[in-house]
Amino acid sequence: MYNKIAMIKPQTLKGFRDFLPEEARKRQFVINTLKQVFESYGFEPLETPALEYEEILLGKYGREGDKLMYRFEDNGKRKVALRYDQTVPLARVVAQYQNQLPMPFKRYQIQNVWRAENTQKGRFREFLQCDADIVGSSSVLSDLEILACINTAMKNLGFQGFSILVNSRKVFDMFGANKKIISILDKEDKIGKDKVLGLLSEVMESDQKAEEFYSNIKNLQPKNIPDRLKEILEKSDELNLFPAFFLARGLDYYTDLIFEVKIPKYKGGSVCGGGRYDNLIGMFAGKQVPAVGFAFGFDRLIEAMEQNKLFPANLQTTKVLVTIFPSGSEELKEKSIDCSLLLRSSGVSTELYLDENAKMEKQLKYADQKGIPYVIIIGPEEASKNLVTLRNMKTSEQKIISLDEALSVV
Amino acid sequence: MYNKIAMIKPQTLKGFRDFLPEEARKRQFVINTLKQVFESYGFEPLETPALEYEEILLGKYGREGDKLMYRFEDNGKRKVALRYDQTVPLARVVAQYQNQLPMPFKRYQIQNVWRAENTQKGRFREFLQCDADIVGSSSVLSDLEILACINTAMKNLGFQGFSILVNSRKVFDMFGANKKIISILDKEDKIGKDKVLGLLSEVMESDQKAEEFYSNIKNLQPKNIPDRLKEILEKSDELNLFPAFFLARGLDYYTDLIFEVKIPKYKGGSVCGGGRYDNLIGMFAGKQVPAVGFAFGFDRLIEAMEQNKLFPANLQTTKVLVTIFPSGSEELKEKSIDCSLLLRSSGVSTELYLDENAKMEKQLKYADQKGIPYVIIIGPEEASKNLVTLRNMKTSEQKIISLDEALSVV
Repeated sequence: MYNKIAMIKPQTLKGFRDFLPEEARKRQFVINTLKQVFESYGFEPLETPALEYEEILLGKYGREGDKLMYRFEDNGKRKVALRYDQTVPLARVVAQYQNQLPMPFKRYQIQNVWRAENTQKGRFREFLQCDADIVGSSSVLSDLEILACINTAMKNLGFQGFSILVNSRKVFDMFGANKKIISILDKEDKIGKDKVLGLLSEVMESDQKAEEFYSNIKNLQPKNIPDRLKEILEKSDELNLFPAFFLARGLDYYTDLIFEVKIPKYKGGSVCGGGRYDNLIGMFAGKQVPAVGFAFGFDRLIEAMEQNKLFPANLQTTKVLVTIFPSGSEELKEKSIDCSLLLRSSGVSTELYLDENAKMEKQLKYADQKGIPYVIIIGPEEASKNLVTLRNMKTSEQKIISLDEALSVV
Repeated sequence: MYNKIAMIKPQTLKGFRDFLPEEARKRQFVINTLKQVFESYGFEPLETPALEYEEILLGKYGREGDKLMYRFEDNGKRKVALRYDQTVPLARVVAQYQNQLPMPFKRYQIQNVWRAENTQKGRFREFLQCDADIVGSSSVLSDLEILACINTAMKNLGFQGFSILVNSRKVFDMFGANKKIISILDKEDKIGKDKVLGLLSEVMESDQKAEEFYSNIKNLQPKNIPDRLKEILEKSDELNLFPAFFLARGLDYYTDLIFEVKIPKYKGGSVCGGGRYDNLIGMFAGKQVPAVGFAFGFDRLIEAMEQNKLFPANLQTTKVLVTIFPSGSEELKEKSIDCSLLLRSSGVSTELYLDENAKMEKQLKYADQKGIPYVIIIGPEEASKNLVTLRNMKTSEQKIISLDEALSVV
């Protein structure tokens, strides 16, 4: 029977990943930190299904989105699609429960999305999105709340010296910049000033106009920027904000504030981005619903945390390994089991070694490999005196003490 | 534009659910509790993809499973299927990373699965599974570790008076009971003794044989049960174990220990079940890999927690709402914003009210609705003295104090 099934190659689909414990722990560490920050700002959790009616998602992400979407017919011949982002489902939720949701609705959502991306570009087909948005408030206070939340999240993750680059769509309006021009400005980061000027000259059909236009935006004076952006930038020091008047970010979607988070030396791009988008969330409700929010790019965040060595050295939570005395009596084994139960009922995270035939050396090695700081040994000598040996794995120090004393140490 | 899109009905697919904040918070509470317990026993997190190659899943869950599985062709014409359970993916992982995974491998996995169930039966098509398993150890110590973990999880969730019903496949072997007979015994809970005896008589073609057989198992003496089960049952008191010699649980799969968790007065069935299954996990590896584990039925657990009133009254984490003084000056608004930033940088979960035009009454009502315990008000009087008003929402008590004093209260 085994041989037959073993002919199926154990493998994952291209662009899909298993997360083994070491990686999974890191992901949970980041998720827990983000959740804690989001909740401390009053954002509430929301979950939506992995599958939606195709018509809810189709046409909302442009032609490219429709192409990359996982779509199929279910057993009941319904046309369905896998979650592609978390904003369109949010728009559906806002329409579907409009009499039930208090406004402003501050929700966060941390779920996987699926896109049939070209994996050659190092992209994944299943990846986690971490969104937080404020729906139903057009106040600048919401914009500030969103930026403050990002700032706290970055700090709590351990990042130092990051910047939140801030701009407003209204800046482009001030200078009458059209979509084409905006998309050129947005590239300066990648292609540099000279190439931007070249492209601008082509579109504007004049070198002089292009240079004038470029320097007008580049040298925009604080007193001349739109009032709302000005008010936001007054909090630059507290919130690590930096004006970036060329920043555009998929402009079709945003209506005012836009922002991105950059980490020095990290080359993977911005780890977080967002802005105000007042014309999107109301699409299913048939009315305008203002909204502002952001999404963390989870895979980039993990990568940047690795690079900056921000993960705790030991994400292990077990405090004690209770060993099983090798070739010991049934009674000794019982003592070890009872000891592990007692430690746990006292709230100490405890592992029991799971092989009664393993040598003590192997058991100690297991504790060492898993980063468990203490080991308890109960041999015939300890048992006869109703004591235990407590070993500190870091210092290799051992002492024979009562279980109560051991409890107070660990 | 809005009207056009609004013609699409905002709805979820049958059997799929949105979890709005109140419900989502409860789910997170249970997930967090379970994770903490699992990790305190040394179980490590594992994540596998939502989509697998169809051949990995197909044929592993019987004909019914193949029918209920969500299967489709992806854009690259690959035959794929949505995760149907977490055991088959675990078997794939064990084969795929066999040189990398230390044994025993203790993993937990909390992810959604998808089954095209008949929703008329109150079943869902997307639901969460919470599994923990020990792979690669055939020791009775693993069985005990699994049972101890369940016992702690149930206690930490707040349940009292629950029972872990325990049996072994070997008990049926002792009496030479075949599949047909076992499935009859397993029904006693639902159909009662008389009907069980009737069905047994039919199969055994003798009333007397049936009664003898029935009472032999029913009255099995402690000294006569299989050694391994005996050793487990010695921990009955500590672990809330109760022998249940009729318990069967999809017997094809299990090879020795089987168990189920029952909660008194809860009619939804067992909230957790599992056992030892030594012939399954090795299916892709082409060798035998012993395993023992369990799965919590998440929806039942939530239901039983509701019924037993085990959720904390207030899952709200925000401690303070900083109000915006109505029709106040820009300066007052600034003070409120700065106050919220300062509270947060001191580690206090804080919401800022997001509408500068709302009346104070409305703002207090918001804090009340969201269960936020404290409110800070900064009006002209407070601002002039560099103080704040701190209001206790429960007692309606207000005092004008310095922000430092307020910090020490909240």
